[in-house]
Amino acid sequence: MITTELRTDPITGRIVAIDLSPFKRRDDFELEPVRLEDAPSKCPLCEGREADAGPEILAWREGGPANVPGWSVRVVPNRHPMLRIEGQTTVRSEGLLESRDGLGAHEVIVETPIHDQPLHTLDVDHLWRVLWAWRTRILDLKRDSRFVSAVIFKNHGRAAGALLDHSHSQLAAYPLIPPALSDKLRGAARHLSKAGKCVFCDLIVQEVTDGRRIIRDQDSILAIAPYASRVPFETWLMARDHRPRFEDASDDTLRALAASLKAVMARIDWALERPACNFVLHTGPLSGEGDAAFHWHLEIIPRVTRFSGLEWGSGVHRNPVSPEESARVLRS
Amino acid sequence: MITTELRTDPITGRIVAIDLSPFKRRDDFELEPVRLEDAPSKCPLCEGREADAGPEILAWREGGPANVPGWSVRVVPNRHPMLRIEGQTTVRSEGLLESRDGLGAHEVIVETPIHDQPLHTLDVDHLWRVLWAWRTRILDLKRDSRFVSAVIFKNHGRAAGALLDHSHSQLAAYPLIPPALSDKLRGAARHLSKAGKCVFCDLIVQEVTDGRRIIRDQDSILAIAPYASRVPFETWLMARDHRPRFEDASDDTLRALAASLKAVMARIDWALERPACNFVLHTGPLSGEGDAAFHWHLEIIPRVTRFSGLEWGSGVHRNPVSPEESARVLRS
Repeated sequence: MITTELRTDPITGRIVAIDLSPFKRRDDFELEPVRLEDAPSKCPLCEGREADAGPEILAWREGGPANVPGWSVRVVPNRHPMLRIEGQTTVRSEGLLESRDGLGAHEVIVETPIHDQPLHTLDVDHLWRVLWAWRTRILDLKRDSRFVSAVIFKNHGRAAGALLDHSHSQLAAYPLIPPALSDKLRGAARHLSKAGKCVFCDLIVQEVTDGRRIIRDQDSILAIAPYASRVPFETWLMARDHRPRFEDASDDTLRALAASLKAVMARIDWALERPACNFVLHTGPLSGEGDAAFHWHLEIIPRVTRFSGLEWGSGVHRNPVSPEESARVLRS
Repeated sequence: MITTELRTDPITGRIVAIDLSPFKRRDDFELEPVRLEDAPSKCPLCEGREADAGPEILAWREGGPANVPGWSVRVVPNRHPMLRIEGQTTVRSEGLLESRDGLGAHEVIVETPIHDQPLHTLDVDHLWRVLWAWRTRILDLKRDSRFVSAVIFKNHGRAAGALLDHSHSQLAAYPLIPPALSDKLRGAARHLSKAGKCVFCDLIVQEVTDGRRIIRDQDSILAIAPYASRVPFETWLMARDHRPRFEDASDDTLRALAASLKAVMARIDWALERPACNFVLHTGPLSGEGDAAFHWHLEIIPRVTRFSGLEWGSGVHRNPVSPEESARVLRS
C-alpha cells in the first residue's frame, strides 16, 4: 500500500513527497493562529506616526500633503533594508568566491492605516489599492536599469517571519535574477522550446479540465492547489490571460485578483484557524528577458508545517495534505 | 555605505544576502533553547521499549539477542515513513504532471539508549558508533538497485522539526536524485569540466590559505563557515581527502568526524545558547554517478532565524551574521 507519492512540479521540476491519505488536522501541524502582539501605541506603521515609518515614496490619498495622516495605502523605504539603492553592479571575485554589493531596493507597502486589519479583511476596493501600489512601484523601479527583477512578498504572522503585526508587504528589487525566479524561468523556457507554448497557460487548461485541484475560478483569476504543493493548502492565484509581468496587468485583472485573494484567504482562515502565511508575487524580469515563456502568479504559502533536515538536506518537501484534499476542503 | 553583500555559493551558485556588520545577538534571533518536553516514560526510543520503536535493522551491542536492552546505537524503520520499500520506480505521467510511488527507505537511527543525551554530548567513541551505523546502513541499502541516493539528516530540537526529544537521526534512500543533491552535483560537474578538479578540494585549499572562515582544522576534518552561509553559524565539516561517498570513509576519518562534530557543536551551543539545529550528510549517488566531482560533507544548520516570504519568494536567504564573524566567534 503506497500512501506517499513523489510528484514533480511541472514548472521547476522540484520534487515533493505528498501524503495521499484523507485530510485530517494533524497533531504535528503548527496551528499558531495569527495574534496581535505589538502595542498599537508603539507601532511605527500606524496612522499618525508617519515620521517613524519614513518618508513616503507613494501613497493613495484623497488630496492633502505627503507624510501626514489621510492615506489608505503608503509605501516607505524599509528601515532595515537588505538591499540599498547605492552601489555597483560589478561582481568581485577571489578565486572560487564571488560577491557583489547588496544593491537594489527594499520597500515596505503599509496596507492600511489601522493597526489590526489583516490584508484580506480589507474591502475589495482597498485591497485593489494595495495591488495598485505594488504595480506602481514596480513600474517606477524598472526605470533604473541596474535592477533586473522584483519580488513582492508578505509575511503574515510571526510564524511566517513577520516582525511587525501591522499589515504590510515588501518589495525587493534585485540586480540579478534570484534563484527561485531563475528556476521557474528555466523550466518555462524548456517547455516553450519543446511545446511552443507558455507552460502556465498549458497548465491552466489541464487543471480546469481535470478540476480536482481547482479552488476558485471566477472572472479572470484561477485559484488552484498546485500539483506539487510543498505545504498544506498552498494556493496559486493565476491570471487566465497570458502576461509575463505583473506590472502589465490591467485594473480589471487586479480587481479580480483582489476579490480572489480575499475569498481564498477567508477559506484558508476557516480551514486552518487563521494560520500564518507568506504571499509571494512571481513576475517576469523587469528587462523583459524570458517574457515569451513567463506568466506572473501569486503564491499563498500557509506556514503550519516546520522545515526539517529533510527539506534542508534533500530539497524535498514532505506535505501531509494532498492538493486534491486541500482544494476539496477549500471548495466546500 | 554598503552593509549587505550578495554572495554566490561556489558549489551550487545560490545567492545569499550577508549582513557584514559585527556580530551581536539580535532581537529577532529565535533563541529557543533545546528543551526536553517528552516524558521519558512514554518515549518509544528509550531502552526497554524496543518493541515500541520497531524491529531492529542494525544495532551496536556487546553480544546478546536483538530487540532487547543492551545496545548503544539501534536502527529501526521509521514508524511514519515518507518512503516505503514496496513500489515501482515507474514514472506515471498525465499531460504536464508526473508522479511516482514513494518508494525508498526511511529509517531511524536511535543514537543512545538514554532519553536526555544529545548526540554531541556522547563521548567520541559512542559518537563514532552512530557514524558507523550511518555508514553500515548506506552500504546495505545500496545493494538494492532501485535506490539511487541516500540522505542522512537530523532534527535537533523542536524548532528544527524534531517530533521526539530522544536523540536520533534519519536516513532516507530515494529512487531518484533529490533537488538539493542534484544542485550540488551539477555545480561540481561544471567545475570539474572547467578546472579538471573537484570543486570541494579546490575550495578547501582556498579556505585554508585564506583562514578567515576556518573554525577548526584538526586531523583529517576541516570545519568551515561556508562563504555563502544561509544562516548564522552554518558550519560544514569536510574530509580533507577526496572521497565522493560517505560510505567509503575509513574508520579513522569517521573518528575524526566524531571529534570535530562534538567540538564544533559545543562551541555553537555556547555561542547561541543551545540552539535547535539540523544536520545533513551530503553524499554522492549510490550508483557512483558523478563520482569524479563529488566530495561528501556534513552540514550543520542552526535554526535561529525564520524563513520568511523573502526566502520562499526569491530563494535568497538573508543571513544577519557573516561567516567570517561566525568563524571568529566559534574559534575564540
